[in-house]
Amino acid sequence: MSNEEVQSEAFSAESYFATQPPPASLEEDVARAREFIQKQISQGRKVVLVTSGGTTVPLELNVVRFLDNFSAGTRGATSAEYFLKAGYSVIFMHRQFSLQPFSRHYSHSTHPFLDFLDVDDSEEPAQIDVKAAEHTQLIEVLSQYKRVQKAGTLHTLTFVTVNDYLWLLRAVSQELVPLGRLAMFYLAAAVSDFFLPRQKMSEHKIQSGKGSLHIEMDQVPKILKPLVNEWTREGYIVSFKLETDETLLVPKARKALARYGHQVVIGNDLHRRKFEVVFVSPKGGRPVLDENGEAEPDPSQFAESWVHIDPATNPTREIEEDIVAELVRRHRVWTGES
Amino acid sequence: MSNEEVQSEAFSAESYFATQPPPASLEEDVARAREFIQKQISQGRKVVLVTSGGTTVPLELNVVRFLDNFSAGTRGATSAEYFLKAGYSVIFMHRQFSLQPFSRHYSHSTHPFLDFLDVDDSEEPAQIDVKAAEHTQLIEVLSQYKRVQKAGTLHTLTFVTVNDYLWLLRAVSQELVPLGRLAMFYLAAAVSDFFLPRQKMSEHKIQSGKGSLHIEMDQVPKILKPLVNEWTREGYIVSFKLETDETLLVPKARKALARYGHQVVIGNDLHRRKFEVVFVSPKGGRPVLDENGEAEPDPSQFAESWVHIDPATNPTREIEEDIVAELVRRHRVWTGES
Repeated sequence: MSNEEVQSEAFSAESYFATQPPPASLEEDVARAREFIQKQISQGRKVVLVTSGGTTVPLELNVVRFLDNFSAGTRGATSAEYFLKAGYSVIFMHRQFSLQPFSRHYSHSTHPFLDFLDVDDSEEPAQIDVKAAEHTQLIEVLSQYKRVQKAGTLHTLTFVTVNDYLWLLRAVSQELVPLGRLAMFYLAAAVSDFFLPRQKMSEHKIQSGKGSLHIEMDQVPKILKPLVNEWTREGYIVSFKLETDETLLVPKARKALARYGHQVVIGNDLHRRKFEVVFVSPKGGRPVLDENGEAEPDPSQFAESWVHIDPATNPTREIEEDIVAELVRRHRVWTGES
Repeated sequence: MSNEEVQSEAFSAESYFATQPPPASLEEDVARAREFIQKQISQGRKVVLVTSGGTTVPLELNVVRFLDNFSAGTRGATSAEYFLKAGYSVIFMHRQFSLQPFSRHYSHSTHPFLDFLDVDDSEEPAQIDVKAAEHTQLIEVLSQYKRVQKAGTLHTLTFVTVNDYLWLLRAVSQELVPLGRLAMFYLAAAVSDFFLPRQKMSEHKIQSGKGSLHIEMDQVPKILKPLVNEWTREGYIVSFKLETDETLLVPKARKALARYGHQVVIGNDLHRRKFEVVFVSPKGGRPVLDENGEAEPDPSQFAESWVHIDPATNPTREIEEDIVAELVRRHRVWTGES
């Protein structure tokens, strides 16, 4: 079966939004995001939308079971911090319970905060002390967090399902239009390729007659196409590609750029993603479109640059610091500042 | 299709463990649990195994997608704290990233701990202060946590998949045998009914030819049967039943008791589970067995007792405090202390 036939059976973005219901909190979420964006515009700030974490696909209307591709959200939460440090305002749109900027340093499983507090009951009333070994890092994280809160440059949005994600992404990208080229999209969330349309949910309910569970799902629409062509025409769009075969990274990134016409694909190899990524972009920043996505793009029309860090010589360095620095530089070019 | 035919197509516990691979960390986890249990025995403590959170069902060998029935783990984490307060040692076997005793009070999404710390930079070096409004609760939680750490009465085990859960439950229950009647099983985890056998994983891989995803799963074996009959013969076993139709709670609980022969089913209605539960148990503590699970059990052979709390008059009370108090009382009867 050819790709075209696959396309014909997949939901287009248009048919998706025409048939799938918006999340209940959408209007309120969008109103709060709009208010945040207006404030950033009035202060002349650049805004980056960071998406983070995985998405769920409910199998039942009263959600008990769901398909998931959980991601801890490390890349998104870490990058958000570096964007804030670089002076960006951040809309952090993340999967419920995935990591968040600042608090990510104290995850309950790897670095629980109760472990670095002590009770000093030599005084009355008893005092709470921070253990000496933790003091330096906590002061640093806490000070940054308080600065960001005071400046009002971080706005958080939460999604759970892939449907929440799609509706929110569309609505927020439309709200970012007034920023023009000052908006960046950093699409680090791991989004499900498949979903169960609301209309099929009763059909697809657990069929336990044979003692087994049957599920059949549809493809999620390719959202980068309308994002680039309709929802935002000037925003700087960064998508991610995660592969387990490193040799596929660059060719697949080129194909995505040729298909969707956005600015950068950051390629990650699953096992090396914390130490190495590749930036792939069209030469001269001009998209090389092949909307059918059939032809193998001409490599000479694309540029690659690799970012590496060496955990042996600098174990605390986070590659997101270098990723964000490079994007900030490229975004300045995009906005015409340099 | 009758229930018998369903049974014949389902995995028995025996065939499950004969064909599904143990998790890589099982031996090490069991060795550490054994050490913990030995210490509790030497100190004459009762031990409760609390299971908590949901389980995942991987769809691929290199796990990207999985079926999930995520539970935040509130019941298990809260109950574990009350068991510790009641003098029990607790093996807290929980889904990775679900709530844990003590740190549950400071979840990143609802009560992030960075929000109740302040930086006081009037001093040099800067100090970290706990906000006055948070001080009382934090001192209390922290003091309990430190006491439990010092006493060494809490041992944590982590699972992710339903396979991890099943192997761990079997192994730990066997390690608890030396405790005899001093062991309690508080099975609060939400365990998947379905799984994808390892042997079928390649067959079941994503079939995207038609632009859709097909999955077919098998039933997870009913684990209470071997738990009661083989793995532990004296432990006091508490299982949970969650329903959306309250009228089904008691009949379904009776049926589970008649089928598996354990001591208590705690029935929860999904919408009222934080304020109301029902304890269902065989009268006189004697099981009323119907291993085929076909007949409707005779109601006169079972006793029910309801536990309610009123959030209007006491908004901070947790129903787990009453659940645990009732179980502690019943467990004393079981061990012959009263």
